[in-house]
Amino acid sequence: MRKQYKKYDFPVNGIRRYLEPGPIVLVSSRYKGENNIMTMGWHSMMEFTPSLIGCLIVDYNHSHEMIKKSGQCVINLPTIDLLQEVIGIGNCHGSAIDKFKKFSLTPTPAKQIKAPLIKECYANFECKIRDKKLLPKYNFFILEVVKAHVPKTPKYPKTVHYTGDGVFMLSGNHINLSKKFRPENL
Amino acid sequence: MRKQYKKYDFPVNGIRRYLEPGPIVLVSSRYKGENNIMTMGWHSMMEFTPSLIGCLIVDYNHSHEMIKKSGQCVINLPTIDLLQEVIGIGNCHGSAIDKFKKFSLTPTPAKQIKAPLIKECYANFECKIRDKKLLPKYNFFILEVVKAHVPKTPKYPKTVHYTGDGVFMLSGNHINLSKKFRPENL
Repeated sequence: MRKQYKKYDFPVNGIRRYLEPGPIVLVSSRYKGENNIMTMGWHSMMEFTPSLIGCLIVDYNHSHEMIKKSGQCVINLPTIDLLQEVIGIGNCHGSAIDKFKKFSLTPTPAKQIKAPLIKECYANFECKIRDKKLLPKYNFFILEVVKAHVPKTPKYPKTVHYTGDGVFMLSGNHINLSKKFRPENL
Repeated sequence: MRKQYKKYDFPVNGIRRYLEPGPIVLVSSRYKGENNIMTMGWHSMMEFTPSLIGCLIVDYNHSHEMIKKSGQCVINLPTIDLLQEVIGIGNCHGSAIDKFKKFSLTPTPAKQIKAPLIKECYANFECKIRDKKLLPKYNFFILEVVKAHVPKTPKYPKTVHYTGDGVFMLSGNHINLSKKFRPENL
């Protein structure tokens, strides 16, 4: 049984809570009526406001051209219940198949872009390309998150983090040490 | 009691094992005879060969200028036993104090650069700046890892991952699903 999340608008300048810990994400895109999904592990926060993410999507991925040409994508945050899908999506090529159908995932309309959200994921971040300067040399996209959809519970999702060699690290406990921080450094 | 690690050369094209899961790292630098350390959570793998890391170091950090001017730094991977130091180093400014002394950390000579390794960290990655193209606009450094020092045990360190608001996620269990992968996708 897959998890169902009721999601709410979340401030785009607060998404580091979900991405800075380094989870594997699923990137969904749409171009000329075709949807696609890829698995991605190489990403970094780059700014709070505007909400910027840098990420590497190699050009042999079908998604690379779709995102470059449409200027948009969604970064979806899967949890451990979707681990088989995370691996399966990484194992096949989007030019040959519809990955939403193959993996029984539900494309849901986004609010500000045309690429679809993946309903079964914990959170969805709608993105527009902000800067293509590093694309030719590094395949590195700089994206602006324009809308974020996040459930209120659980506060911290059980995410999966890839180490290579087929090994995943699962997110563990959370500890709150905010009293040890200077307020301006939180 | 702090952990002691006996470290060995590790292939620089394999460091994604430690960085792709998204841990907080400590960045050490040296310029004009002065050492410094900063805490960093915004980084991404960018290439296997050469071994490239992209990372964001805001220019109000004392380390920003030191790294830019020296062209070098070390990315050190702390484990949970150094969590108080991780927070403390983020709480103070390197222009006023020697953070190695303040936090009783041991600077150890690197092999290929002049910035010091932090002995107490699990792993140390010696880096040279590869590309400054994104520095003016985004404070984003593209670094090449030229030497990696990693112990043989434990295979997977207990790392800390920052979510903001003073809350850390601790690394959890590792699971090996390599049999589910196509060999070329591992």
